[in-house]
Amino acid sequence: MFTTPAENSPPTDPAAVVDLLGMLAYGQLLAFDRLAADARLAPDLRRRALLSEMAAAEIGSYRRVVHRLAELGADPSAAMAPFAGPLEEYHDSTEPRDWLEALTKAYVGDGLADDFFREVAGFLGPPDGELVLRVLHDSDYDRFARDEIRAAIEADPKVANRLSMWARRLVGEGLSQAQRVASERPPLTALLLAGADSGGIQGLFRRLTTAHTARMAAVGLNN
Amino acid sequence: MFTTPAENSPPTDPAAVVDLLGMLAYGQLLAFDRLAADARLAPDLRRRALLSEMAAAEIGSYRRVVHRLAELGADPSAAMAPFAGPLEEYHDSTEPRDWLEALTKAYVGDGLADDFFREVAGFLGPPDGELVLRVLHDSDYDRFARDEIRAAIEADPKVANRLSMWARRLVGEGLSQAQRVASERPPLTALLLAGADSGGIQGLFRRLTTAHTARMAAVGLNN
Repeated sequence: MFTTPAENSPPTDPAAVVDLLGMLAYGQLLAFDRLAADARLAPDLRRRALLSEMAAAEIGSYRRVVHRLAELGADPSAAMAPFAGPLEEYHDSTEPRDWLEALTKAYVGDGLADDFFREVAGFLGPPDGELVLRVLHDSDYDRFARDEIRAAIEADPKVANRLSMWARRLVGEGLSQAQRVASERPPLTALLLAGADSGGIQGLFRRLTTAHTARMAAVGLNN
Repeated sequence: MFTTPAENSPPTDPAAVVDLLGMLAYGQLLAFDRLAADARLAPDLRRRALLSEMAAAEIGSYRRVVHRLAELGADPSAAMAPFAGPLEEYHDSTEPRDWLEALTKAYVGDGLADDFFREVAGFLGPPDGELVLRVLHDSDYDRFARDEIRAAIEADPKVANRLSMWARRLVGEGLSQAQRVASERPPLTALLLAGADSGGIQGLFRRLTTAHTARMAAVGLNN
C-alpha cells in the first residue's frame, strides 16, 4: 500500500510536511468535535455509540499526528492554526440536520479525505507517509455508514435524491475550502504539484473524482 | 485493589448487576457527549485536545461495559434506558459556562464516580468487579485537571470561591439524581445495601464524603 517516492522526485519541503500534518491534525480535532455532536442525531443508543466511537477514533489519530509534529520540531498549535478557518467554515456550512445527513457526511467526507491522504502518503518519504496511511479511517466505520445509507434508501427511495443533493453540497463546500487552502499555503500546494507526477494535479483530481463517484454509486447516490 | 466478596455475603442479584452496568454505560456515553462539547471551552488547542481525549476514553470504557451487558444476555439499550432521565438531568443542570467549570466538573464528578464504583466493585464477584475497576478514569487526566485548577487559583485566588460554589452545586445535583435512582431501582439499591457491609450505607457515604473533601482541598477548594 505504501509506495516510496520515485528516486528522481524532489526532496520534500519540511514546511510543506508540517503544513500537511497540521491540516490533518486540525481536521481530526474538528471531526471529533462534529461527529461527537452529530452522534446525538442517532435514532438509538447503539447507533449513537457507533458514531461516538468514530469520533473517538479521530482523537487517537490526532494524537499520533501531533506527536509527529512535535518530533519535527514544529509547534502543533501553530501548525494547525492556518487551517482552522477553512476547516471550520466547511463544517459550519455543512451541519447535518438529521442522522442520515450526518452519516452521509462521514461516509463521503472520510472517503474523499482518505483517498486524498493516501495519494499524498505516496509523495512523502517514511515515516510521514506511513503515519498518514496509519491514521486513515477504519473501514469498519465506512461499512457501517454504507449499510445504514443503503438500508435507508431501500426503505424509502426518495431519500436517495435528498442525500445525493446533500453529498454534492458537501463536495462543493469542501472543494471551495480546498481552493482557499491551496491559494493560502504555497508550500503545501507545491508539494502536491511536485508529488502528483503520474498525470499531474489533474490526474490526482480525476482519481479522487472517480473513487468518489464509485463510493456514491455503492450506496445508491447520484453524483 | 480488587477485594472478593466476603464468604457470607448474599449472592448478587443478576438484575442488580445489569442495572449497575447499564447505569455505568449510559454515564460513560453521556460523559463522552458532554466532555466533547466542553472541550470547545478550552483556551487553546492543547487543552482542547486533552479534554477531547478524556471524552474519547469514555467511549472505550463504554464499549467494554456494553460488551459485558451483552455477554450477560441483557439488551444494552434496555439496561441503560432507566438511567437516561437522571443522568441527563444531572448534566443539563450542571452545564459548565467556562473552561474552569468544565474541568472542575470532570475532576469532582469523575473522582466521586470512581470512588463509588471502586466500592461497588468490591461487592461484585469477578469478572464484573474487575471490569468496573478497569474502566475507572485514567489518573493522568485527573492530574491534568488538578494542575489546571490549582494554577488558576494561584493566578487569581478569587477563583477558588466561585469554583467551590460550583463544586457544591455539582455534588448537590448529583446527590439529588442519585436519590431518584435509588428510589426507582430497588434491585440496585438492595445491592448497595447488601454490599456495604463495613459500616453499612452510612459508612459508604462517609468514605465518599471524606475522599471528596480531600480531593477538593488538594486543589484549594472548600467543601
